[in-house]
Amino acid sequence: MKKVYLDNASTTALRPEVIQEITHVLQEEYGNPSSTHSFGRSAKNILESSRKLIAKQLNASAQEIIFTSGGTEANNWILRSAIKDLKVKRIITSKIEHHAVLNTVLALQTEYGVEVDFVNLNSKGEADINNLVELLSQDKPTLVTLMHVNNETGTVLDIEKVARLCKQYNALFHSDTVQSVGKTEIDLQKAEVDFIVASAHKFHGPKGIGFAFIRKNPGINPMIFGGEQEKGLRAGTEGVHNIAGMAKALEISYVNLEAERRQIQDLKDYFVEKLQTNFPDFKINGNPEGFYNIINVLLPFSDEKTAMILFNLDMKGIAVSRGSACQSGSIKPSHVLKEMLSEEDLKKPSLRISFSHFNTQEDIDLLIEALKTV
Amino acid sequence: MKKVYLDNASTTALRPEVIQEITHVLQEEYGNPSSTHSFGRSAKNILESSRKLIAKQLNASAQEIIFTSGGTEANNWILRSAIKDLKVKRIITSKIEHHAVLNTVLALQTEYGVEVDFVNLNSKGEADINNLVELLSQDKPTLVTLMHVNNETGTVLDIEKVARLCKQYNALFHSDTVQSVGKTEIDLQKAEVDFIVASAHKFHGPKGIGFAFIRKNPGINPMIFGGEQEKGLRAGTEGVHNIAGMAKALEISYVNLEAERRQIQDLKDYFVEKLQTNFPDFKINGNPEGFYNIINVLLPFSDEKTAMILFNLDMKGIAVSRGSACQSGSIKPSHVLKEMLSEEDLKKPSLRISFSHFNTQEDIDLLIEALKTV
Repeated sequence: MKKVYLDNASTTALRPEVIQEITHVLQEEYGNPSSTHSFGRSAKNILESSRKLIAKQLNASAQEIIFTSGGTEANNWILRSAIKDLKVKRIITSKIEHHAVLNTVLALQTEYGVEVDFVNLNSKGEADINNLVELLSQDKPTLVTLMHVNNETGTVLDIEKVARLCKQYNALFHSDTVQSVGKTEIDLQKAEVDFIVASAHKFHGPKGIGFAFIRKNPGINPMIFGGEQEKGLRAGTEGVHNIAGMAKALEISYVNLEAERRQIQDLKDYFVEKLQTNFPDFKINGNPEGFYNIINVLLPFSDEKTAMILFNLDMKGIAVSRGSACQSGSIKPSHVLKEMLSEEDLKKPSLRISFSHFNTQEDIDLLIEALKTV
Repeated sequence: MKKVYLDNASTTALRPEVIQEITHVLQEEYGNPSSTHSFGRSAKNILESSRKLIAKQLNASAQEIIFTSGGTEANNWILRSAIKDLKVKRIITSKIEHHAVLNTVLALQTEYGVEVDFVNLNSKGEADINNLVELLSQDKPTLVTLMHVNNETGTVLDIEKVARLCKQYNALFHSDTVQSVGKTEIDLQKAEVDFIVASAHKFHGPKGIGFAFIRKNPGINPMIFGGEQEKGLRAGTEGVHNIAGMAKALEISYVNLEAERRQIQDLKDYFVEKLQTNFPDFKINGNPEGFYNIINVLLPFSDEKTAMILFNLDMKGIAVSRGSACQSGSIKPSHVLKEMLSEEDLKKPSLRISFSHFNTQEDIDLLIEALKTV
């Protein structure tokens, strides 16, 4: 049975060149980057050239890139430190953030008693910019945290615009860019966001590694204390093999971006075309013009539960997702769709299909055929 | 030039079987363990069988093992949570802990205003048990954090004994076991310590992965919030390849323990013998009967600085360390040796040599020859 992986917003298959790079470092470069001898210096070189390579892809400087164990840690660190170190008294966010942001904001609200404001959303899941301006115009030390590309629907935020607004109103701006880094151009000289984060496994790199971008460190202290790694900002021996793999993955992603984006957009268009033919009453959740690799569709199956459809697809070797994979073990409805769909539509089955350059039209055909037999 | 790596307390070369396991997972098992489809379930299986395998080595139950990005994160989490969640008001520790514990304790002291008591040490760097009992007999909600094997001198703490004392006085006991996991038998049914931690790269596994052992969770909450990974205790997509590699590394370490320990102890004895012949005035810092893979020696070179000796060895391709590698970039004297050596001896050069089963007598011969030409 041919297996079909259409859950690339959850995690991605690694590029062969990335696996090669990781294996090379594991075999040859086992030194501790904090050691001053040749084994250590060699590991340190890999660390720092990876940092430079990553910074270059985003038009940032190397010292603004701090390695973490992934996007979740990076989000937690920045949000916590904004309150503890930068004395933020209010967080403006949205109800459709990833749980790495949403649950962290709620935990910090309890811990530090900061104020939390949720920006209004329209039916596509887009932040209401007028409402954001209204909130920003209240004079409080504020951090805005709004994600770039929504992981469930692909709805996109204009981070350049929001960054300008935040600057104008003297607020800090953090954006969870886990779904967009490596998948769209991010120029950090143009988008004046203060903090972004990334997870390598979302762009065909290894799991358990990511980074925070911290613009001209405004006074952030570590969340994890210990040794002097990462200029004293993140203690713990660095996962050099993972970092080298992440840099390689990001580099190739940007080299291939235009071609792979076109290929993936074509697949998405093909999928929509096939849905129109076979399930003419389907709806797209979120913005139909959303990010090119994600589509969230409401299917016109009256009596079927999402779980049953997923089970049927899974039996045929086809992997798609209901809402966020991070929550897919739970039976709660998606917290994102809840903000966007009517009560009626929430009861109908919705699927998230997310593509990568490894997918083909045949994958789509198999998915459509499988859906037709449900 | 043959390169000689004698800095295994800093980090270790990976076992070939571990690299093979990691590469296999990277190639074949890229699913997200939180996904419910077959790709996800397969990754989840690896995760959970790794957890079981690790738990088995330490005579713990699988649910007591929580994966983290390494020992530093695990130490930070436990110490912070002991205060925040378990309402500890005082921490008893020592001045020769690894910075992952020491700096964290100091940061938490500032943040939460907890009391910190340092147990007295003897000249071998061993905790004074009478003093510990005295401190424990003060009736305050207390966590004791004392490391098992000191990373700079190899001084060993009797964790079974300390665990019994802590139990008797109703204190929690955390031990930083980063230097001992995989290198000596740890039976968590016998040693009733509440929390231990490990870093895979110390036992020939990958960097950037480790675990916390949390005995029958007494109420610990996450430090990193987000998804429901690790039973809600540690958010973030798990580094499945690293975790599988860590489990493999730990399993092989314990299969081979007796043979490799004998081999390494023989190397250490051979080194001491050679020192006695060539540098009869050398001294061993810490306990001469310390842990079998670490030795910290004071060399009778009057005019030489440690840095110069390290530089000379490095030129010859020989890697040893001054104090902790995590601090080796800094010019401060070792905080560990500072607690144990006289002012006089602190000025003399000290080296830490740490062995693994990959070392041979030839490595020792090359080190001794190199030292003779200093």
